[in-house]
Amino acid sequence: MKLEILDSTLRDGAQGEGINYSLEDKVKIFKTLDKFGIGFIEGGNPSSNPKETEFFSKSLTFSAKYAKLISFGATRKKNIRCEDDPHLLSLINAGTEYVSVFGKASYFHVTEIINTAPDENLRMIDDTIRFCIKNGKKVFFDAEHFFDGYKNNPDYAEKVLLTAQTAGACRIVLCDTNGGTFPSEVYDIVKSVKGLIETPLGIHCHNDIGCATACTIAAIEAGATQIQGTFIGIGERCGNTNLSVLIPSLQLKMGYDIVPEKSLLNITETARKIAEISNIKLRNDMPYVGKSAFAHKGGMHADGVRKNSKSFEHINPESVGNKRNILLSEVAGRGAVMARLEELLPELNISGIDKDNPHIAVILEKIKENEKKGLQYEAAEASFELLVKREFGLLPEFFSIEYFKIIGEQDGNNPSTAVVKINVGGTTELAVSEGNGPVNAIDKALRNALAVFYPVLNEMALSDYKVRIIDSSDATAAITRVLIESTDGVNFWTTVGGSPDIINASVIALTDSILYKLIHPPEAGGDSR
Amino acid sequence: MKLEILDSTLRDGAQGEGINYSLEDKVKIFKTLDKFGIGFIEGGNPSSNPKETEFFSKSLTFSAKYAKLISFGATRKKNIRCEDDPHLLSLINAGTEYVSVFGKASYFHVTEIINTAPDENLRMIDDTIRFCIKNGKKVFFDAEHFFDGYKNNPDYAEKVLLTAQTAGACRIVLCDTNGGTFPSEVYDIVKSVKGLIETPLGIHCHNDIGCATACTIAAIEAGATQIQGTFIGIGERCGNTNLSVLIPSLQLKMGYDIVPEKSLLNITETARKIAEISNIKLRNDMPYVGKSAFAHKGGMHADGVRKNSKSFEHINPESVGNKRNILLSEVAGRGAVMARLEELLPELNISGIDKDNPHIAVILEKIKENEKKGLQYEAAEASFELLVKREFGLLPEFFSIEYFKIIGEQDGNNPSTAVVKINVGGTTELAVSEGNGPVNAIDKALRNALAVFYPVLNEMALSDYKVRIIDSSDATAAITRVLIESTDGVNFWTTVGGSPDIINASVIALTDSILYKLIHPPEAGGDSR
Repeated sequence: MKLEILDSTLRDGAQGEGINYSLEDKVKIFKTLDKFGIGFIEGGNPSSNPKETEFFSKSLTFSAKYAKLISFGATRKKNIRCEDDPHLLSLINAGTEYVSVFGKASYFHVTEIINTAPDENLRMIDDTIRFCIKNGKKVFFDAEHFFDGYKNNPDYAEKVLLTAQTAGACRIVLCDTNGGTFPSEVYDIVKSVKGLIETPLGIHCHNDIGCATACTIAAIEAGATQIQGTFIGIGERCGNTNLSVLIPSLQLKMGYDIVPEKSLLNITETARKIAEISNIKLRNDMPYVGKSAFAHKGGMHADGVRKNSKSFEHINPESVGNKRNILLSEVAGRGAVMARLEELLPELNISGIDKDNPHIAVILEKIKENEKKGLQYEAAEASFELLVKREFGLLPEFFSIEYFKIIGEQDGNNPSTAVVKINVGGTTELAVSEGNGPVNAIDKALRNALAVFYPVLNEMALSDYKVRIIDSSDATAAITRVLIESTDGVNFWTTVGGSPDIINASVIALTDSILYKLIHPPEAGGDSR
Repeated sequence: MKLEILDSTLRDGAQGEGINYSLEDKVKIFKTLDKFGIGFIEGGNPSSNPKETEFFSKSLTFSAKYAKLISFGATRKKNIRCEDDPHLLSLINAGTEYVSVFGKASYFHVTEIINTAPDENLRMIDDTIRFCIKNGKKVFFDAEHFFDGYKNNPDYAEKVLLTAQTAGACRIVLCDTNGGTFPSEVYDIVKSVKGLIETPLGIHCHNDIGCATACTIAAIEAGATQIQGTFIGIGERCGNTNLSVLIPSLQLKMGYDIVPEKSLLNITETARKIAEISNIKLRNDMPYVGKSAFAHKGGMHADGVRKNSKSFEHINPESVGNKRNILLSEVAGRGAVMARLEELLPELNISGIDKDNPHIAVILEKIKENEKKGLQYEAAEASFELLVKREFGLLPEFFSIEYFKIIGEQDGNNPSTAVVKINVGGTTELAVSEGNGPVNAIDKALRNALAVFYPVLNEMALSDYKVRIIDSSDATAAITRVLIESTDGVNFWTTVGGSPDIINASVIALTDSILYKLIHPPEAGGDSR
């Protein structure tokens, strides 16, 4: 069975709170989606601002493998001719083969919000679609507010769809614009429309009651064949249908043929890349692609997946390019530590090791002790790996820090300056660096000094820096926990530091970050956690 | 119609990655849920560690208004007597009126994971329920892996339920433990079980395919009457059914009577409080209760809701204690700024103001300019309010900073020291403070100096501090954006600062945070954004 996918990250996704794409971002996202195998990409509304116009003219110059670019815009304004509507002209002039035209399918919206005569609204839809076709376009018609409109005035909502069909739209997209429709309602309504309309139907849902995914599945079960959404679910208010959640369900569990099989293996990476370009952190608990999607904490769960992954996983994490993650916490205990060790150090053949191995006890003790100091290994697996390898004597002493100082005054005009002295096998190196604040200055000084000995460190950079003030358990002093995410362009890893002082906490996390890179040289592939 | 709710934040929620409750946290969450009107609260597994045991003995000493506390545990181990199973004994000894007992409803799990004879598994369930009842308990039976079990071996799954019913369980809870079942499957299976089992049915879903909410609704439509979930959706892997999303849908849109009407008005506040105790940030796009749940960015959407909120909102945000939020961005333009002004300064009677009012143009220009410097007002409405009031001459000059310095050396052992000199109406005040790092030191020094003039500042404290390194549009220098969330114990507000230097950026945000407090004295109520 074949379904087609339309991604609206660049249009509806850009309406999400906190999302603000540059022209460069938009190009990157288009290319990422195309590479993944998305068939239709809504690029934006060419009349909304100059950046959009520039994006369309730029996009038409590069060749896409799978994707057709779509420009998006409204029907003509009321009581004027199509030829006289500048917004409509920019839609035509965007130069795409396909256009999405949206019009109101709700009697309430027509009469109360855009204050238009119901018949004129139908003429606006009819005229606009015909005008676009006359200008060589293939037209998708987005029936805005369709479900709410259908519930209040089904006759009018149906007339809108019939008008679009007669005018020649090649897809009719049913939109739950306000996101408040339940899956069973979507199923019934799409089923009924299916009996009336021959044009292939699309479905466009929002997540305002947490049911966008389920509503989209219900529409497919009722006969819709074009699926609209945004790759990581971003969009106006509570977001749109999340394609990175929906596509694996459709392809792996429901047997639809959506994207090349190889793409599915890259869906986690693709989702994380789009999140990165969007400058947001993908939710850890996002189905299929989130960092915690296959994380097991409960002792029984951790034991279960060790025996048979099907026991607590509905699919194999590798099939979506994600991975299992056995968490370390008071709930998990020794079994989870053993499971993680098995992953980290297969050469130790842990399953053969006595459960009372003294190294294990020491590691458990250190985790507890460090957690009291504000470190948290669940979110910083690279630091956990270093702790374990240190305990097993598998971490060479690459360097030590003799001292670091933040020097000079700072009055708000001058940058921070840091001095760091390191020792590598008896040879010392002193380095100084300015930076945007003390942590940045220390980071640069530390890596300047170390790169003399380890040029591989030039490949890495900090990609995220998070600070959290936490109450220590004894409440005598607040502890600062710093999480640093680093990248060498291919892999990402997270390290943690904790201390009452933010500078100390940062140095602990920075040191781990560098050590992690040193034990994962590029040819070894590294780790994408 | 009446449904009952069981919240498992303290048990299944605690299995979520990054969640780690202290005894104190657990007590706070119990009281918060009880106050909200939740009927059943699963408190944890009393045999898993001493903290749990202590929680149960503590909880029984205070009286709850709505909630019954439930202790949770497994059926007896195979091939032993109930009396000899220490875990089961601690379940009994937890002292609650109700217990949840979980047992395997999947033939695969019985034979492959816990390696037990299928008949012995049924006896374990039968014996355990009878043993609990004999010891004075009311028993909920959680049929673990029920849906997967039913799909593979319906006869055995049904036998498990019948065994629990015959043994006397007062609820039988159907669990989609791995979270991979589709809503239509849940509907069909629950419908079929309903024809077989007279005991009231519960439903317990996980979100691994993004359908936990929809699956729960499907189960209700098929006849389940006990709804299980966690208040903000946290839980193992992708989380559990999110009650703060589900309850408003059930009560406002489907007509069920779930919680006192007044509670629904507090659901946003309750969700945020539980997130705070859980030390996580509630997702902005969370339906009903998220900060962006009623945020409008697209120009047409912003205009639409100004005319009639129903145009782009499926419910009234006030009905769940949330609020509409007109976002400020290049997409939104002048209309959105006008709408926000109307909210902030109703006394200006903005709708009567000329759209070409010069103040509006200046404000738009400043937003653009400051966004280039790394400030972002979408996430920092308190800073936006200050910008607007400054432009309209409504912000008194409470103080100015003459200088600030970070002084002395820092070698990792000594805390940071900051000196700040402020000027209040011609009178200067010099203050010094040590702190956990330079930002903390400046914050303390600044407020020490200002509290001499404005004692109300003693009421406020920083509640969160976020740092993000962003590429400036010209890519010549990275900009540090600092978001500071402050609280006076009742309200929370967020301010933003941007600069190439983290210290400067922090001072900008700190200053706004203090100003916001000064223009929102306690009696005025303030703002909970």
